[in-house]
Amino acid sequence: MTIKVLTMKEDILGANDAKAKANQERLDNLRILTINVMSSPGAGKTSLITNTIRKMPSAARIAVIEGDVASSIDAERVQQLGVPVVQINTAGGCHLDARMMAEAMDNLPMEKIDLLFIENVGNLICPAEFALGEHKRVIILSIPEGDDKPYKYPLMFTEADVILVNKSDLQPYTDFNVDAFHKAVKGINPKAQIFHISCKTGDGFDDWLKWLRAEMKAKKGKS
Amino acid sequence: MTIKVLTMKEDILGANDAKAKANQERLDNLRILTINVMSSPGAGKTSLITNTIRKMPSAARIAVIEGDVASSIDAERVQQLGVPVVQINTAGGCHLDARMMAEAMDNLPMEKIDLLFIENVGNLICPAEFALGEHKRVIILSIPEGDDKPYKYPLMFTEADVILVNKSDLQPYTDFNVDAFHKAVKGINPKAQIFHISCKTGDGFDDWLKWLRAEMKAKKGKS
Repeated sequence: MTIKVLTMKEDILGANDAKAKANQERLDNLRILTINVMSSPGAGKTSLITNTIRKMPSAARIAVIEGDVASSIDAERVQQLGVPVVQINTAGGCHLDARMMAEAMDNLPMEKIDLLFIENVGNLICPAEFALGEHKRVIILSIPEGDDKPYKYPLMFTEADVILVNKSDLQPYTDFNVDAFHKAVKGINPKAQIFHISCKTGDGFDDWLKWLRAEMKAKKGKS
Repeated sequence: MTIKVLTMKEDILGANDAKAKANQERLDNLRILTINVMSSPGAGKTSLITNTIRKMPSAARIAVIEGDVASSIDAERVQQLGVPVVQINTAGGCHLDARMMAEAMDNLPMEKIDLLFIENVGNLICPAEFALGEHKRVIILSIPEGDDKPYKYPLMFTEADVILVNKSDLQPYTDFNVDAFHKAVKGINPKAQIFHISCKTGDGFDDWLKWLRAEMKAKKGKS
């Protein structure tokens, strides 16, 4: 008699991928460009999103899904800007998954959105393993975290479409080596685009917004 | 007929707790003060450990267990100081567990150690759920991460014995509110000791080292 073996991790990820695909089809049908924003705690995910909302034309219809272990601090910051926002609390969970994403979308005015930001749980490891249905993955690495992070957290950096190096205003006070960081990224993910920004001063946002507008245009143009 | 229900998460944690207890008995028998150091990526765990080794009397016999998803960058930094070190790579795993800890101890000269640092994987969520056998939990929160982290990552801050607020040299360039941070910690963990330090300048190390020496003395004094 054959012994039945349940490989739980594979099963769970398999189910997540199917759900993520369904989410993406829903987003594609509505032509909503969807961006999964991931980083360590405190690297600047909410600041990126709120600054981007402020700098985008008011005609761009933006919404946000906020993921946190606990609290609704970030959702409150976003709501003050008058955009639709849903907060997911994972109650200890270290990442968002596609089921949470589907439920969050059910609570947003999906017919009235062009650009959807997902702010994942602050964690440089687990969120990279769970597709949500997003079109692009944007990783934020803040200068004080150090230039060696691509070596230590390779999956997150390997799967990034864009890497935003935030808190460039703190660079003069740290030993962050820009060349070493770019070399580390190129070694594992040569296609990733890297933009240096400061959410505090606004430096570097032009290139990031240019990339974002081009992606939104491409998404709208697709049938 | 009763249905058999396997609650996997509880079982896994239960097994981990038993193994952690065995680890702690082993450490108690050898009177090795063992400290589990946890933080976000890049908050300064390795810098804390290397600076502490440099500032402690050479008679203090220190060893280090390094936990990382990948790479041995941190272990190399520690090894340069001439102390015994073991690197654990979790191959994607987001925290150390008691089994890994037991195996690491098997690879250290346990009879010749007074103080053992465990540098956990850089993650402000999952490591807090897994006891390793440590006597004390030290959390590092770096100034650029922001003062709201106790609200967002409550378990980590609730279970800390000591909270080290690192990178105090960057404080003038951020909007970190010290009073707000202390208030947030007091609300969930009034017993935690908070020391402000800078691994870069050495500021604040006196109080941290005083605490450490007192704990080592207490551990040696116990039968």
